[in-house]
Amino acid sequence: MSLPRLDFGDTDERYHQGLNVSEEDCSLLTDLYQLTMAACYTGEGVEQRRASFELFVRRLPEGFGYLIAMGLAQAIAYLEKFRFRVEHIEALQRTGIFDGAPDRFWSLLSEGCFTGDVWAVAEGTAVFANEPLLRVEAPLWQAQLVETYLLNTLNYQTLIATRAARLRDVAGEKATLLEFGTRRAFSPQGALWAARAALAGGLNATSNVLAALQLGELPSGTMAHALVMALSAMEGSEDQAFTAFHQYFPGAPLLIDTYDTVAAAQRLAAKVNSGEIELTGVRLDSGDLLALSKEVRSLLPSVEIFASGDLDEWEIARLKSNGAQIDGYGLGTRLVTGSPVNGVYKLVEVDGIPVMKQSSGKMTYPGRKQIFRSLEQKKDRLGLITEEALPGEEALLQLMVKEGKLIKLPESLTEIRHRTATTVSNLPVEVRRLDNPVSLQVKISAELEKLTHQTQKQRTSEELMVSG
Amino acid sequence: MSLPRLDFGDTDERYHQGLNVSEEDCSLLTDLYQLTMAACYTGEGVEQRRASFELFVRRLPEGFGYLIAMGLAQAIAYLEKFRFRVEHIEALQRTGIFDGAPDRFWSLLSEGCFTGDVWAVAEGTAVFANEPLLRVEAPLWQAQLVETYLLNTLNYQTLIATRAARLRDVAGEKATLLEFGTRRAFSPQGALWAARAALAGGLNATSNVLAALQLGELPSGTMAHALVMALSAMEGSEDQAFTAFHQYFPGAPLLIDTYDTVAAAQRLAAKVNSGEIELTGVRLDSGDLLALSKEVRSLLPSVEIFASGDLDEWEIARLKSNGAQIDGYGLGTRLVTGSPVNGVYKLVEVDGIPVMKQSSGKMTYPGRKQIFRSLEQKKDRLGLITEEALPGEEALLQLMVKEGKLIKLPESLTEIRHRTATTVSNLPVEVRRLDNPVSLQVKISAELEKLTHQTQKQRTSEELMVSG
Repeated sequence: MSLPRLDFGDTDERYHQGLNVSEEDCSLLTDLYQLTMAACYTGEGVEQRRASFELFVRRLPEGFGYLIAMGLAQAIAYLEKFRFRVEHIEALQRTGIFDGAPDRFWSLLSEGCFTGDVWAVAEGTAVFANEPLLRVEAPLWQAQLVETYLLNTLNYQTLIATRAARLRDVAGEKATLLEFGTRRAFSPQGALWAARAALAGGLNATSNVLAALQLGELPSGTMAHALVMALSAMEGSEDQAFTAFHQYFPGAPLLIDTYDTVAAAQRLAAKVNSGEIELTGVRLDSGDLLALSKEVRSLLPSVEIFASGDLDEWEIARLKSNGAQIDGYGLGTRLVTGSPVNGVYKLVEVDGIPVMKQSSGKMTYPGRKQIFRSLEQKKDRLGLITEEALPGEEALLQLMVKEGKLIKLPESLTEIRHRTATTVSNLPVEVRRLDNPVSLQVKISAELEKLTHQTQKQRTSEELMVSG
Repeated sequence: MSLPRLDFGDTDERYHQGLNVSEEDCSLLTDLYQLTMAACYTGEGVEQRRASFELFVRRLPEGFGYLIAMGLAQAIAYLEKFRFRVEHIEALQRTGIFDGAPDRFWSLLSEGCFTGDVWAVAEGTAVFANEPLLRVEAPLWQAQLVETYLLNTLNYQTLIATRAARLRDVAGEKATLLEFGTRRAFSPQGALWAARAALAGGLNATSNVLAALQLGELPSGTMAHALVMALSAMEGSEDQAFTAFHQYFPGAPLLIDTYDTVAAAQRLAAKVNSGEIELTGVRLDSGDLLALSKEVRSLLPSVEIFASGDLDEWEIARLKSNGAQIDGYGLGTRLVTGSPVNGVYKLVEVDGIPVMKQSSGKMTYPGRKQIFRSLEQKKDRLGLITEEALPGEEALLQLMVKEGKLIKLPESLTEIRHRTATTVSNLPVEVRRLDNPVSLQVKISAELEKLTHQTQKQRTSEELMVSG
């Protein structure tokens, strides 16, 4: 079925071919059912009842022993801007989908903004299955509508930050790790968010210029085969391409694998040895990186060697354990794409009543929770927010937004990066390892166990009443 | 290293926490090396030489017999807006990275826009390894700078459109296929682009409200467990939740698996049979979809059954071949995430000279190409742009942008969707099948073979001259 395109008053009719996300339109970046459900709550007169939803993963992704929570800054930026404009409401009305919705729904949307509380773990904190990364406590309609965007934000950045933390853990503190994934990232904004999460998770720099400048970081990069090919063709040789690039960017590594890697390294070595050039680095992007890195190191002993090309934490571990002579790695495709973090956002309490989902294989714990972490005992306790921390425990979920207002200052990338490094270094080795990692032990508190049984029991007796 | 954040004159200091991509800033959404290489070309005085780059995949992704080209509309929208603003240039200068770059580089950036030609296959066309989806012919500096964004755009949408086409092929024309991936997509814009490509690839609708409205389509959706849990808790039962939602949205399917799927279907059947409600659909999101769909069909024979939950083309094929009673599928995580399409963008000619990359395992074909498709013979011929189509062949690469101006009108989603369906139906069965599909045969033309040998030979003799 076809509708007039959403017209935001822009005169360029092809504008929306860009399919960009302006912050002003983010409230519409939601699944339709969030809006129909909010309309239904309004019709039932329960839209203002206090609801608590928690965002967590049911299980860690395959092969992961932990997750690094990330994306909270963007989630909060979204909540602060959460508004429906007149054009949004008119566009929704034109769909006809809401013809049966109560009139009050439209005044709710046009007047509303986010007025709830947000509890969350700080970005850069390790979390495990069933532990909330975030809880929204808000009027039911608001808490419902924001689900889609919050999941989108936290799922992706958490994935990237976790991978970045694993890469740093494997490569070691001294290795230079560069984020090169923009061309393979899933959309331009996906590239920006990947760059942020990768830096916050432990990488040194990104090649994405816009991301780096928006984050106040220096972008990083080398050179591409195209330059070697273009200048070789027009000026006569690969060496002339090297000389030209080195003249303008003497600190940038040269890419030496366009034609014959070893021959290129030999020719560069002759120039370095004769004092003709000072070379800081070279990059290898193809072939047997292990053998080539050793050969290049023997030819150019004082030059940094960067490697790239479908690398990930396993390949870096393999290269390192075989004595590869590599000082830095470019990480692209395998960092920014792949299987997602499957976070979910589940209602845990409404109008003071704890609730839980009991679908086959998808059970959730009821009630508003707190994560109590014991660094000394290397274990977590998942309890209720009303419980107290025991000696040696730290409560990880903090109140970040109160009645719609941010009460914690946004953190710098440096702070978050530091927290990531600390949290990973505090994890047991079996949680950090690449091969068959195991989760940290997460104990369910006695009070949460009790509430779960009570909620289950009550549900069952209601079911029997209704169907009986 | 830390820099002042890129300041675009926005007064809200937290603005860039959103890390959004405004169309005005897209020229900076590139890898740093594109800019350093452009500066180097400028220093060498070759930045205006005509260069041709082609975008293609070296091999099809594992398990894919074809790709559906997608993302051209967004690629062209980007090229049309390609400009560097004063703030961009100042931000680049502040990095210090370009201190050795020639002054002329800055006037080039500040005055330049995209003035080249773009040849491309129409969106919705099947392509195979080594076949260009797109060729840029432009002044070298422009053709170089746009690489990153073009790859980002075409790689992702091509992946999603291909998956959507496979899903449609497996599910059949009558099945309703809905895109539900926003919460798992890699960034909000990733969700928008996935929705567009999924619709253009053959899905019926998306749940993403902003995407649907921007595209002039109706969004689609059902209801979530949260509504059942919230209204059950506050109003007393799952049935009251169903009644409430159905009252406002009588056409929307009810989600029946929150507690006991079969019990819920039995209670609904009683109401349908007594004429108390008219029910159009139900959704199953957990458990054994095969068995449950049969059981629900026997209880609610005239009601559409939708299934969701980690579905993909293989699972739909399995369900269908086992006689599942499912009319529609919701596709999320496995549609919008996963392994990418690894498109590359390679220089094929510069200043009239054909060039090729000869890196280990990454060889490319030189010269500006054309894809000649023979529908009758079910094969392609990859030749040079200067070759003529043989009888029965169609030349697939068309001139879309000439001297920076769009010369083809943007197509509607309906047109692209239709082309996708036609192109897939014309492919041989062994290309379309899910298990061990094979690529269509792509023959390299005699002229392209000859040019490849000549370019290789010339390169080798230059190498010998230089290193000898």
